[in-house]
Amino acid sequence: MQYNPEFMTLAYEEALKGYNEGGIPIGSVLVHKGKVIGAGHNKRVQKGSVILHGEMDALENAGRQPASVYRECELYTTLSPCPMCSGTILLYGIPKVIVAENQTFMGAEELLRSNQVEVIVVNDERCHELMQKFIAEKPTLWNEDIGV
Amino acid sequence: MQYNPEFMTLAYEEALKGYNEGGIPIGSVLVHKGKVIGAGHNKRVQKGSVILHGEMDALENAGRQPASVYRECELYTTLSPCPMCSGTILLYGIPKVIVAENQTFMGAEELLRSNQVEVIVVNDERCHELMQKFIAEKPTLWNEDIGV
Repeated sequence: MQYNPEFMTLAYEEALKGYNEGGIPIGSVLVHKGKVIGAGHNKRVQKGSVILHGEMDALENAGRQPASVYRECELYTTLSPCPMCSGTILLYGIPKVIVAENQTFMGAEELLRSNQVEVIVVNDERCHELMQKFIAEKPTLWNEDIGV
Repeated sequence: MQYNPEFMTLAYEEALKGYNEGGIPIGSVLVHKGKVIGAGHNKRVQKGSVILHGEMDALENAGRQPASVYRECELYTTLSPCPMCSGTILLYGIPKVIVAENQTFMGAEELLRSNQVEVIVVNDERCHELMQKFIAEKPTLWNEDIGV
């Protein structure tokens, strides 16, 4: 199997949690050998954080891992990873990223691919709709999150 | 003036603080129009964090800023910024990065330059010596920080 839809559902549920907290609805899970070792969602609003994007929060919640673990991980995320999150994926050598959608925002997928990271975009309608709803409600907050 | 050596001294003092806490001695300051708006150092050991590199900690401590502020900032760092920190610099559109040294570790300077970020390497001997001392003492911890 190229990817496991159940893990994308977990990432979506993280995004939804973020939305219900009044935050930016992007979620992520870090999976090691079929087991979630870190789950998280964007915490810009909740923690006043400029670095806790969904992917970063998932990695942070996974705690300190040896390089050998990251190299066997897959990262599921509800939105195409921005340059910060993509750089982090490269730093830790995570080989595979499953992206719900990149219509709302096209991240640094080319940078990932040019560094031999496998990027799979699955066009998840739930994640896309949630982001569209959020952006319509809070466009300024969204722009802040992507440095615009 | 291309850069202000006093800000590199502040970044070095952050690195030294990290060393004295038993952590990884890399420090950074974010400067907006000649004023430090965020200072920080690597918190891998102190907070069990995998994302709080020196640069990330400085940005986090600066708090939520509008894009217009980041675009007028300079980031001082005691070590060449890794792919994560470089991606964050790109996300927020920070136009100028002053690096103490890149002999210990060559970060993603090419990625920054190819995205029109000005990168100045000043070959600061204090920062280099501190890192060499640290790596001799704790090589495994250092490798963990750069995903090796």
